Amino acid sequence: MKELQIEVTLSSTRKQKPDFDNLVFGTVFTDHMFVWDYTEGTGWHDPQIIPYQPITLDPAAMVFHYGQTVFEGLKAYLTKDEQVLLFRPDENMKRLNRSNDRLCMPSIDEELALSALKQLISIDREWIPGVEGTSLYVRPFMIAIEPHLGVSPSKNYRFMIILSPVGAYYKEGINPVKIAVESEYVRAVKGGTGNAKTAGNYASSLKAGEIAYQNGYSQVLWLDGKEQRYIEEVGSMNIFFKINGEVVTPELNGSILEGITRKSIIELLKYWNVPVVERKISIEEIQQACHEGTLEEAFGTGTAAVISPIGELLWKNEKMIVNNGEIGTLSQKLYDSLTGIQNGTEPDPFGWTVRV
Amino acid sequence: MKELQIEVTLSSTRKQKPDFDNLVFGTVFTDHMFVWDYTEGTGWHDPQIIPYQPITLDPAAMVFHYGQTVFEGLKAYLTKDEQVLLFRPDENMKRLNRSNDRLCMPSIDEELALSALKQLISIDREWIPGVEGTSLYVRPFMIAIEPHLGVSPSKNYRFMIILSPVGAYYKEGINPVKIAVESEYVRAVKGGTGNAKTAGNYASSLKAGEIAYQNGYSQVLWLDGKEQRYIEEVGSMNIFFKINGEVVTPELNGSILEGITRKSIIELLKYWNVPVVERKISIEEIQQACHEGTLEEAFGTGTAAVISPIGELLWKNEKMIVNNGEIGTLSQKLYDSLTGIQNGTEPDPFGWTVRV
Ligand SMILES: Cc1ncc(COP(=O)(O)O)c(C=O)c1O
Ligand SMILES: Cc1ncc(COP(=O)(O)O)c(C=O)c1O
Repeated sequence: MKELQIEVTLSSTRKQKPDFDNLVFGTVFTDHMFVWDYTEGTGWHDPQIIPYQPITLDPAAMVFHYGQTVFEGLKAYLTKDEQVLLFRPDENMKRLNRSNDRLCMPSIDEELALSALKQLISIDREWIPGVEGTSLYVRPFMIAIEPHLGVSPSKNYRFMIILSPVGAYYKEGINPVKIAVESEYVRAVKGGTGNAKTAGNYASSLKAGEIAYQNGYSQVLWLDGKEQRYIEEVGSMNIFFKINGEVVTPELNGSILEGITRKSIIELLKYWNVPVVERKISIEEIQQACHEGTLEEAFGTGTAAVISPIGELLWKNEKMIVNNGEIGTLSQKLYDSLTGIQNGTEPDPFGWTVRV
Repeated sequence: MKELQIEVTLSSTRKQKPDFDNLVFGTVFTDHMFVWDYTEGTGWHDPQIIPYQPITLDPAAMVFHYGQTVFEGLKAYLTKDEQVLLFRPDENMKRLNRSNDRLCMPSIDEELALSALKQLISIDREWIPGVEGTSLYVRPFMIAIEPHLGVSPSKNYRFMIILSPVGAYYKEGINPVKIAVESEYVRAVKGGTGNAKTAGNYASSLKAGEIAYQNGYSQVLWLDGKEQRYIEEVGSMNIFFKINGEVVTPELNGSILEGITRKSIIELLKYWNVPVVERKISIEEIQQACHEGTLEEAFGTGTAAVISPIGELLWKNEKMIVNNGEIGTLSQKLYDSLTGIQNGTEPDPFGWTVRV
């Protein structure tokens, strides 16, 4: 494993840690951050760990105007024996580079970026909450910083990693959520940026999310952009259904994010010999399964919430109730197994976790 | 007309002005900038004109992660008698608010924003190049600044205006450009953000633009996201065709930007009694018109280049040559008339220009 040589400047003061029992997702940041600049001609240079602080950019920096950004999200867990575990961080780095490619941004050495991530976490290790269900959320991201008003790829970029101790993503906990199927707005379409983790996808998703929220739904389920018929994904989660004993999830089609939790769930189900299929799923198929009583479970998957059972799907005024609005047996088992592997309380037969 | 009360801090030094005969688009900025902050609960507060300088943001500022941004682009012209003219700036402010609505960003008082724009231009008025074909490019933009890693609308925003003296957008001048019709990548789809002026649309367009550029084409022509058949727009321009004496342009369908140049061209053509129709236009229709010899002219329209004649369209290996690759009579007439109105050398029967 390659090591990145980083210039480290430690903070002279330490911030007060928040109450680890009452963390609000993504609002508190640790004492340090990692910064690495890219300059056309020179490449990546001067990796640094410095005190967490504001960044200074020209108002014409291209990120503000033309949105060249990519990001990742993963978590570090503190095990009972005080080890720090990351969950498949190499997958995040690979996806970061796939996103970079789509956004015409420079690729980054995945091993070196991972080495930076580990060094930063080691320095701020006291910020990893040990409380059950909590973790340290890790946010690597890259932005275009050249000051230039003209639509073309930026010449210069900044890659950063920031850390935030987090509690459960949904304040309601692992309770089933209510999701509204979106039939007006579209998140992404084939040929667009749906499978890249870039800011614009999230900006465009806000409006539908707000409307759903006002109507009492926690997120929206996106349908495809061409026919508005095939199921894509939920807010920041991929989606799975259990229909008549078989688990199905939308296939990777270029417009949904290739979730690492999704991939792990599929591998876990195969390991358990539970039938699982990646394919096109129309919303009518789900409606029919619901009517016939074969829609057994539905759940979202993502780093933030891991497994988020779905208790209700609203589609064109029809409320489809899943499993009486209760968490399903398989959803619970997947949640327990995956979080168990992640926080080191369960064995890790796949070698998914990486020690910091 | 309402006036915005702005706190003005003038720069103690003045930057050296660039050579106004050799300006590169969007790389040089004036001495001052306008800044106005929005805070949830308080609303817009503390409008300021201050020396042009870097801005300081938390690395978790939502603009870097979830891309809530909108922007506008317009130009100020110096007339022969040293007056400063803006072209339909009220339309830009209206569109800014339509973009804000789509992106769940707070609306801004259009008159007050325009008042700020005028005050800023007055202060930096020496930066308006008087040379033919040049102008002062005005970039109002708004970004989400709340430090929060969670997909939801930001609570706080910053609205800014920066100014840049510019020469012609295309270094080649009003010479016809070669455009590649894009059949793999998609810019926007109905239900998405195509008709908002927001960063993500531009980020997603870069890849196709780069490929076209490497093949010797200056921009791409986007087709619709559903069928990849109907013509949408070019890079940062709307598109018009003259077929058999009639001018046609794609109708406003939710996925293309409602260009102010587009709107003005339509009004000008109607005023001249030239037939002009807004409707769906398939790429096959253009191909057929080209084969039959009825495709008389093609041109892009936008603030940056005003009119950009198209000499060649590449579609699936077929090079469709328009008007022998030369600028058409109508394109030239539209360019002359519109730029004449904009810089005050022609009468303005519509009352489009606004004095600063
Ligand atoms: C749009 C979207 N879909 C799905 C996911 C789930 O991906 P992962 O399991 O890698 O966290 C995310 C991110 O968390 C996302 O932002
Ligand atoms: C995507 C896009 N289409 C069209 C236009 C043309 O709009 P306008 O004529 O208002 O400049 C622009 C902006 O300049 C644009 O960015």
